[in-house]
Amino acid sequence: MPGRSPSDVIKREVREASAYTLKYLEADVKLDQNENPREIPDSLKRKIMARFGESGWRRYPAFVPSRMTAALSRFTGWPADGILVGNGSNELILATLVATAGPGKTVAMPQPTFTVYRLLASAMGAAVREAPLRADLTFDVEGLRAAARESDVTIICSPNNPTGTFLPAADLSGIIASARGLVVVDEAYHEFSRQSAAPLLERFENLVVLRTFSKAMAIAGLRFGYMLAGPGIAREVNKVKLPYNVNVFTLTAAETLIDAVDELQGSIRAIIEDRERLKAGLDARPGVEAFPSAANFVLFRTAHPAAEVFERLYERGVLVRDVSNYPMLDRALRVSVGTAAENARFLDALDDALEALDAQG
Amino acid sequence: MPGRSPSDVIKREVREASAYTLKYLEADVKLDQNENPREIPDSLKRKIMARFGESGWRRYPAFVPSRMTAALSRFTGWPADGILVGNGSNELILATLVATAGPGKTVAMPQPTFTVYRLLASAMGAAVREAPLRADLTFDVEGLRAAARESDVTIICSPNNPTGTFLPAADLSGIIASARGLVVVDEAYHEFSRQSAAPLLERFENLVVLRTFSKAMAIAGLRFGYMLAGPGIAREVNKVKLPYNVNVFTLTAAETLIDAVDELQGSIRAIIEDRERLKAGLDARPGVEAFPSAANFVLFRTAHPAAEVFERLYERGVLVRDVSNYPMLDRALRVSVGTAAENARFLDALDDALEALDAQG
Repeated sequence: MPGRSPSDVIKREVREASAYTLKYLEADVKLDQNENPREIPDSLKRKIMARFGESGWRRYPAFVPSRMTAALSRFTGWPADGILVGNGSNELILATLVATAGPGKTVAMPQPTFTVYRLLASAMGAAVREAPLRADLTFDVEGLRAAARESDVTIICSPNNPTGTFLPAADLSGIIASARGLVVVDEAYHEFSRQSAAPLLERFENLVVLRTFSKAMAIAGLRFGYMLAGPGIAREVNKVKLPYNVNVFTLTAAETLIDAVDELQGSIRAIIEDRERLKAGLDARPGVEAFPSAANFVLFRTAHPAAEVFERLYERGVLVRDVSNYPMLDRALRVSVGTAAENARFLDALDDALEALDAQG
Repeated sequence: MPGRSPSDVIKREVREASAYTLKYLEADVKLDQNENPREIPDSLKRKIMARFGESGWRRYPAFVPSRMTAALSRFTGWPADGILVGNGSNELILATLVATAGPGKTVAMPQPTFTVYRLLASAMGAAVREAPLRADLTFDVEGLRAAARESDVTIICSPNNPTGTFLPAADLSGIIASARGLVVVDEAYHEFSRQSAAPLLERFENLVVLRTFSKAMAIAGLRFGYMLAGPGIAREVNKVKLPYNVNVFTLTAAETLIDAVDELQGSIRAIIEDRERLKAGLDARPGVEAFPSAANFVLFRTAHPAAEVFERLYERGVLVRDVSNYPMLDRALRVSVGTAAENARFLDALDDALEALDAQG
C-alpha cells in the first residue's frame, strides 16, 4: 500500500462514523451503565464455579449449544430451533444486520435510541431511517409504522434506552403487521416492564426478539444474550453468527441462573419499586423533569447544561450518564436505579449540585 | 410481511450460503478440532478462579480493556494502541470485514483454507478471489501476490488450516508489499511454527495479525483472541467491534496465562515433537500420504474415500476431521496432534481401518 494511508482501506461509512465511546470513571455510586445494583447470591456463584470446575477449558464449546437452547426453550416457551445465543445481545444485533443489511437496504429505528444500532447499520452500508420520538419522548407509533413499511429491518428497543419508554403490544403488533421486512425488538429491559413482545412471535414470522442477561439477570460481566425468532430466520442468522460465540463459563452461569430464576425475582421487584421512588423523588425537585420509565433507569432533565450537572454529581461521588448529545435530549441525564441507599445518595447529590448551579447561574 | 416468506428479508448472499457446520460426535480420542491435548495446569486454574472470585459479575467489563491490552503489549512487544481483543480471533476477522468489505470490494484468500473467511466475506457482499494452493498444497506465492494486488483485503491463514502449510516471512512480505489493501494474517497456529508475521508490523502499515488462545494457550472453551495492527487500523476496526466483547472471566484467565506463559512451553514443545512423530508414523504407512505441517494437526490422504476412513476410525473410538469436501482435498482427512498415547491409538486405528478397507476393496 505504498503511498496510501492505511485508512484508505476502511469503508467510508466506517471512517466517517464516530466510535461508541464511554469514558471510564471510578465512583462510589456508579449509576451510569444500567447495571444491576445487586450481585447474584453467593450460593449461586458457588454452584456455578463448582459446576464449571468440572469442565475442561481446552475444548471448544459445543458447536450447537443444544443444552443451552433447551434450557432457554423451557424458560421462554419458544421452540429451541428458533433460539440463538450470543455473546451479549449486541452480537445478535450485528449478526441480524450482517444477514439482512447492506447497500440498497434500509434500517429503521426510533430516535433517540441505543447508539450501536445506527453505527452497525451504517457500517453495513444500509441507509438509516429514523422515526423520532414525540416531544414527550413516547414512541410515535404512526411514524414507526410508516418507517417499518418502507424498511428492510426495523429495530425497536422497548423499553427504550436511554428514555425508558415502553411500546405496548397493541402498538407493536400494528407496526409488525405493516412492516415490509423484519422487526427486531430489543428487550434488554423487559423484566422491568413486566411485559414482552414474545407472545407475538406466534403470530408474526417477521418478528425477532432479543434479550440479555446483563440487566435483570445481573451478569453483564459474563456477556450473555439470546434471540427468539421463527426457525427460518434463526437458521439464516445462524449462518453469519460466529461459531463457538458463547464461552463455557458463561454457558454454565446462564444455565444455572435459568434454573434459579426465582431467586432473582425479589431483586427485580425491588428495582421496579425503587425506580418508582426515584422517579417520584426527581419529580418532587423543582426544576427537574423526570420521564416515565419501564426500565431500570430514569431519564431526567434540569434547567442546567447536562455536562455541569454531571460534573457536580461526579464531584459528589455519583456517576450518571450525560445523554444530552442524543437528539431531543438537550440537558438530559440518565441515572440507573441503584440500591435504595445509592438512589438516596444520588438525590442528595443532585440537590447539592442544583443548589450550587442555581446559585452560580 | 403478509404473503412473503420470512427468508425474503435475508440477503441473497446469505440465503445461498451453506452454514459452517460440525456434527457433534462423542469419542474416546477426540482429534477433530485442533484443540490442545492438555489442560492448563490445575495450579493456574485455581489462581484464575481465585482472582475471578474477587470481581463482580454484575458490572460490564471495562469499556477499554486497558489492563488486558497492556499485558498483551508486554507479551508481544507491540504498542497497546495497536491491539484489539476479541471473543476468539474469529470475532476480529468479522469486525475487520465489517470495516473493510462490502459490495464492490474484493477479498482474496488461498484455497483450501478456513471456511469462515469466505462465508463472512460473501455475507458482507464482497467478491471473493481465490488463490489456489499448488498441487503439493504449498502456497502459490505468485498467485497470492497477484490476488493481493487486486484485492481490498487478503486473508492468509499461516500455518494454514486445514493443510498445515506455512508461509515464510520473505514470501509474506512480498505479498504485503504488492497488496492494494489490507493483508490479514491469521496466526492461530503460530506457536507450533515458532515463527510469526508480527515483526513485519513495523514495516507494513497494511498488515493485520490475528492470534488466538484456543490452540497453544489451551483455552478454546473460554474464547479469546487478539489483533495486532497499526493504531490507525485498530482505531477504525474498533468502531465496529462490539463493546464489552470479552467477558470478565476470560479476561482474568488470559491475563493470568500471559504471566504464566513459561509454564505452557513444555506442552507446546511436546505438541511439535509429537506432530513430527505422527507425520513420520503416517509416512511409514503404505498408501498414506501425509503433508508437512507447521501447526498442531496433520493432513493426510489415503487411497480410500475419506468418509469411509472417517467411519472406520470412528468405530474404533477415534474422531478426526473429514476435509475431503474442501477444494483439492479429495480423500483427505485432518488429525489433530493429541497426546503421544492418543496419537498411537489413532495410528493403530488407522492400520485397522485401512486393512479393513483394503480387504473390502
